Amino acid sequence: METLTGKNLIGNTWSSRGNAVLSPINPATGSASETEFFVASPEEIDSAGELASRAALDPNFLDLRKRSAFIYEIADQIEQLGDQLVEAACFETGLPEARIMGEKGRTVFQLRQFAQHMLAGFHLDLSWDQAETERVPIPKPDIRKMNIPVGPVAVFSAGNFPLAFSTAGGDTASALAAGCPVILKGHEGHLMTNEIVSQAILKAAEKCSMPDGVFSFVNGGYDVGEQLVKDPNISSIAFTGSTTGGKALIAYARERDEPIPVFCEMGSINPVLVSSSYQENHLDDLPEILAGSIFLGTGQFCTNPGLLLLEKGSKTSDFVEKLSKSLGAQNPTPMLSSKIFEGFSTRVKQLTGEEPSPKNHSSGFLLSVSGEQFLQDKKLQEEVFGPFSLAVIIENQEELQQILSSLEGQLTGSLYIEEDELHEKGAYWSVLTRRVGRIIYNGVPTGVEVCPSMNHGGPWPASSDQRFTSVGFDAIRRFLRPVSFQDFPEKHLPFELSREGLSSFPHRLNGQLIVPNG
Amino acid sequence: METLTGKNLIGNTWSSRGNAVLSPINPATGSASETEFFVASPEEIDSAGELASRAALDPNFLDLRKRSAFIYEIADQIEQLGDQLVEAACFETGLPEARIMGEKGRTVFQLRQFAQHMLAGFHLDLSWDQAETERVPIPKPDIRKMNIPVGPVAVFSAGNFPLAFSTAGGDTASALAAGCPVILKGHEGHLMTNEIVSQAILKAAEKCSMPDGVFSFVNGGYDVGEQLVKDPNISSIAFTGSTTGGKALIAYARERDEPIPVFCEMGSINPVLVSSSYQENHLDDLPEILAGSIFLGTGQFCTNPGLLLLEKGSKTSDFVEKLSKSLGAQNPTPMLSSKIFEGFSTRVKQLTGEEPSPKNHSSGFLLSVSGEQFLQDKKLQEEVFGPFSLAVIIENQEELQQILSSLEGQLTGSLYIEEDELHEKGAYWSVLTRRVGRIIYNGVPTGVEVCPSMNHGGPWPASSDQRFTSVGFDAIRRFLRPVSFQDFPEKHLPFELSREGLSSFPHRLNGQLIVPNG
Repeated sequence: METLTGKNLIGNTWSSRGNAVLSPINPATGSASETEFFVASPEEIDSAGELASRAALDPNFLDLRKRSAFIYEIADQIEQLGDQLVEAACFETGLPEARIMGEKGRTVFQLRQFAQHMLAGFHLDLSWDQAETERVPIPKPDIRKMNIPVGPVAVFSAGNFPLAFSTAGGDTASALAAGCPVILKGHEGHLMTNEIVSQAILKAAEKCSMPDGVFSFVNGGYDVGEQLVKDPNISSIAFTGSTTGGKALIAYARERDEPIPVFCEMGSINPVLVSSSYQENHLDDLPEILAGSIFLGTGQFCTNPGLLLLEKGSKTSDFVEKLSKSLGAQNPTPMLSSKIFEGFSTRVKQLTGEEPSPKNHSSGFLLSVSGEQFLQDKKLQEEVFGPFSLAVIIENQEELQQILSSLEGQLTGSLYIEEDELHEKGAYWSVLTRRVGRIIYNGVPTGVEVCPSMNHGGPWPASSDQRFTSVGFDAIRRFLRPVSFQDFPEKHLPFELSREGLSSFPHRLNGQLIVPNG
Repeated sequence: METLTGKNLIGNTWSSRGNAVLSPINPATGSASETEFFVASPEEIDSAGELASRAALDPNFLDLRKRSAFIYEIADQIEQLGDQLVEAACFETGLPEARIMGEKGRTVFQLRQFAQHMLAGFHLDLSWDQAETERVPIPKPDIRKMNIPVGPVAVFSAGNFPLAFSTAGGDTASALAAGCPVILKGHEGHLMTNEIVSQAILKAAEKCSMPDGVFSFVNGGYDVGEQLVKDPNISSIAFTGSTTGGKALIAYARERDEPIPVFCEMGSINPVLVSSSYQENHLDDLPEILAGSIFLGTGQFCTNPGLLLLEKGSKTSDFVEKLSKSLGAQNPTPMLSSKIFEGFSTRVKQLTGEEPSPKNHSSGFLLSVSGEQFLQDKKLQEEVFGPFSLAVIIENQEELQQILSSLEGQLTGSLYIEEDELHEKGAYWSVLTRRVGRIIYNGVPTGVEVCPSMNHGGPWPASSDQRFTSVGFDAIRRFLRPVSFQDFPEKHLPFELSREGLSSFPHRLNGQLIVPNG
């Protein structure tokens, strides 16, 4: 067990040259920790950028197998973290031990999935078009193409996932797997957790002979974020958090001369459509299931079902009543911070007239409105971050179509519809598919499976670039770019593009996909 | 043969509601054509956007096979265009007939390559993770993922490629192949050519029962471009042209609430490094080869070798002299427009004190500077659009490393180095690889092969998004985004994700790549 220093990690060096400090607060009790954490100074951030830029060219880090071993080692180091991690994370976030243990397991699993899948080389998009020296009017050259890393990535730790979307979370794992050094901007909601995990990454980097600068960790607020986004050494940004935070980063990036990709996963209200027949047939179980999803993690997931589209039928009022009761009956649990609680409390009060209690804790809330009210008031589409959902009672098919068409971009859309209704109501989901990143049949949106087929992202404003997922192995694609080698002598090509490399990885040969030993 | 109308094509309707007009000019003679071309009105552009947005949901257009047939038909229609096209293009651009015929062939070839490769389904990135209903603590759902089109794309026709990067060029072909309707912004340098090709596309769309709005064509200047970039119906931008033009589009896009991807291929100076040994061994042929590449298309290619990095050796001054003579001896050919000629003439005069002549025509120019001069004057890195190249005489290895590190992002980098020098000088190309999109061994950068392994793009400012190519089949990836289907009943999945679809296309099954019949 390491002592907490409250310092920033600039490459392999713990550093505290800044003056401002931050203190960890227990959201459930309001008590503060003794350790103070230093906000990174502009010079420290500059140094992190320069070190990252050099580390990006390091042969050890660029070697696919060595990099994979490094990521496996990070997973091992995190797995070995014991009580200190759990106690710190529970203290800072108010989340229960079981959740922290579960999230630790997910973090380790994610790291190992990247470390494993990267060895298969699918993400390299290897391609070889062979020369045709006799072609007329001009010979065809030998051209081979592969993906290489874009360069250093600034990752912004998420408030609602102190481990799985933070220091060694999915963004960090995918950037490192791609071959990009990471500068991690810590979240002030879990300062101690950030440092403990950073210590684990540093140990892994040293054990695996990774270059100084392969990972840095800095604390701070908007100023630190702004400097990172504008740093010329940074090639890409990954962020999971609020719309306000994401939009601020996008605005900073727009002030850069050189455009860089900014991946912001900003959450959404994840519409859930329930047909009138389904309500009738599932009055006994669905309200409980939905209430469980809405209240999961005290409602602080980006896939929280914040919008229920209920086709009006004979059982709709019973359905809403059962759901509302079930939500109100949830035992109040702590929210992630007093700031988040205040924001949630204000919105809930505006919308329902009710107030969550006791301080910093909440049970679940439901507001029911008509389709007409929903269409008239654009503000009802705004995410309420916490255990709240809006039930919209829909009069007819025309109103439903209007509502679906008016929806902003979403991470997910769920359809609770009987199978024999699917064909007849197919038009819903063809419209819905255009507005979401993942469409779910008879299931809740919470619970984001970590697998290659997962898409976690969606049309604006759910995320800033709908073409990429932030969960699952394909998240690596955010941090890669192609480069072609024309007429290079065999022995001077990068290993992956040599005959030996091509014979061990999937690749296209003159446009035909080939899987060796496949 | 159709009569030229000078109108815009809004969906399937020729329209001329605007007041301003543009006239085709022959750059070689200065004479104007009789037909005037209407600048599109704001209402016409709005209509094109709305039609495109509706066309994006059309089942015929979304069907992979029908869409492929449509693209094949466009190729056939263009192939059938005869003298009218050649005469118009030669008149407007000053390019010789052989070049226009070659470019027509390339355009048809590109369209067919997209139409063919899209049927293989590799670009769909199909993936299936099977359910594990017995998994604890929670069952694993069935998740399948595929790429779908992002929505309507605004394509900006390039000035220097009236066919291959214009109305039915690579950007249009890749957007249509992806399933995205196209609004084509014509280039005022080849107004007649734009309309003739648009007529061919309209015929193909009608013949293949494609929806109204699958393709529109509008004429105009910066105002029209600005409106297109800011149109809420537009999901993506593709542009090939000058840095000034590209930066203007990026600035317009930054004013949008909703960020969209902007793909600008803005050209570069394409450094060519020649070792002193190579100069000695190839004094007889390389100067001629380089002069031919610099003068190709009167130097108006984005892959024009504008920067020659010459290691100083015993034959360097002979090498420069031969190259300079060869360039000066080129028979002056017309440039694309008087505007381009004026720009070129001004820059050449500033740099060399010489002047191209006769009016609107040019032979080739070379300026020779020391490594030190090059490092001191950032302006020497600016592209001179036309038949000009800058030879930099490099004193030693340290200076060369400094120069390579100081280079801006480039489309290509060439190495003329003997094979036995490659190992020793490997450091050059590992640095160079980071600055370019394509690296060429002992070859000129001009001549961009259209094949899956081609990468045409590069780090800023060569292009605005180095992660994507604008030439070759992978250009389709700019216009796709993933969507996941969770727990959907087999018969209600999109065909591509059904068992039948998966059994006919390459896909990942639980992370393992599978090629049916492969």
